[in-house]
Amino acid sequence: MNTLLFTTTTTVDGVVQREFTVGELTGALWSAADAVGPAPLVLLGHGGGTHRTAPAMVGRARRLVVDGGFVAASLDAPGHGGRPRTAYDDREIDAMQEAMEVGEPVGPIVVRYNGALAEQAVPEWRTVLDALQELPEVGDGPVGYYGINMGTAIGVPLLVAEPRIGAAVLGQFWPDALVPLARQVTVPIEFDLQWDDQHIDREAGLELFDAFASTEKTLHANAGRHKELPRFEADSAVRFFARHLSPAV
Amino acid sequence: MNTLLFTTTTTVDGVVQREFTVGELTGALWSAADAVGPAPLVLLGHGGGTHRTAPAMVGRARRLVVDGGFVAASLDAPGHGGRPRTAYDDREIDAMQEAMEVGEPVGPIVVRYNGALAEQAVPEWRTVLDALQELPEVGDGPVGYYGINMGTAIGVPLLVAEPRIGAAVLGQFWPDALVPLARQVTVPIEFDLQWDDQHIDREAGLELFDAFASTEKTLHANAGRHKELPRFEADSAVRFFARHLSPAV
Repeated sequence: MNTLLFTTTTTVDGVVQREFTVGELTGALWSAADAVGPAPLVLLGHGGGTHRTAPAMVGRARRLVVDGGFVAASLDAPGHGGRPRTAYDDREIDAMQEAMEVGEPVGPIVVRYNGALAEQAVPEWRTVLDALQELPEVGDGPVGYYGINMGTAIGVPLLVAEPRIGAAVLGQFWPDALVPLARQVTVPIEFDLQWDDQHIDREAGLELFDAFASTEKTLHANAGRHKELPRFEADSAVRFFARHLSPAV
Repeated sequence: MNTLLFTTTTTVDGVVQREFTVGELTGALWSAADAVGPAPLVLLGHGGGTHRTAPAMVGRARRLVVDGGFVAASLDAPGHGGRPRTAYDDREIDAMQEAMEVGEPVGPIVVRYNGALAEQAVPEWRTVLDALQELPEVGDGPVGYYGINMGTAIGVPLLVAEPRIGAAVLGQFWPDALVPLARQVTVPIEFDLQWDDQHIDREAGLELFDAFASTEKTLHANAGRHKELPRFEADSAVRFFARHLSPAV
């Protein structure tokens, strides 16, 4: 039932991308074409409205594999990518678009909707992690999680539920629902925030970073608006995972 | 008068450290033992109470030379390292120690004292930069500045005065005297702040970062107290300078 089945394989410049299913779930796995034996795993949570092989996922996966020697895996969130949209998804997406059109804050809707998605996504990720760890190229080595925006709305409760995840790169989300959960997180955190985010107030972004109980945590705040997170933060994330997941660097 | 004279040379693991004088000023220069031709230059401003070859200077210089291909130069601030202390220096240092002993805020004294030192240090750095650029291993290529704590108290006015500096890593200082100057700075900035700094309030640290007019600026805030700035921030600084000073990376 929870068997991982590969559906497509493409190799680009030494990185193998394999899409997979686990039951109804759809994801993608990236590994080095010349890999021998298991490597630490980084789970990639995508942003709202995108999917398992969106450009940000492929770009981050490639850096993790090539520069960090990791295996990386993404998973479509409920209602995203290869998965069916429900009437509830449609209503919330309409509500977000309407808010943006009339210039009203989109935050309260995103917080509510992504919270609902996270309730479903957390056990899904745990099931997929079980299946991934059965693969010889993964094994039961160190695991990290990397997700910004909706990837953080799902990632924070996932960190609370899943003790196998030992480090996470998160960021760019509202504190409302996540602060009580972040207070239970103690693994090392790198947290990205946009200093001029037009959707998430600066104070709100800082409040979420502040809430993590982790003794090792770093905030990266860059000048720029919501969608302008600099690409060099993906390189920084690879180094963060190398510090925390790679054995004996 | 402003001729640069080398006084000592030591080579460790491929990095040549040469101490120098320019008139009454004392500094150190680091370059690759196998360097051919000029390289971009990073100026290193040391912290209060330390000096041109303090461990932090040597460590940062080594990373800049080995990992970034740069030349690095440090300079003793007035009253520091190889330079005479005045009666004014002694009074301010006594005042700082007294404040710390009785548990009073040291910030107002440091702000006042380092501001006075900066007035003297800024033209000194400009003189030394003139002399450094006469060296064949430096030339008139890109220049960066890297200084935390007192290195920022001197660095911010130096950036305002010195158009040759094209990028800077700064951090961990009070905003009081520096905010009006930071508003005139437009070059890319990486800014380090300690989230649990016992001397510099979080709000005060964020206020100084916020003041820079630079369109490219990044805040790195790490969990930890004043002296616990993680060493990986020095590696991050090298990558920052590589992005902004290295031709055609």
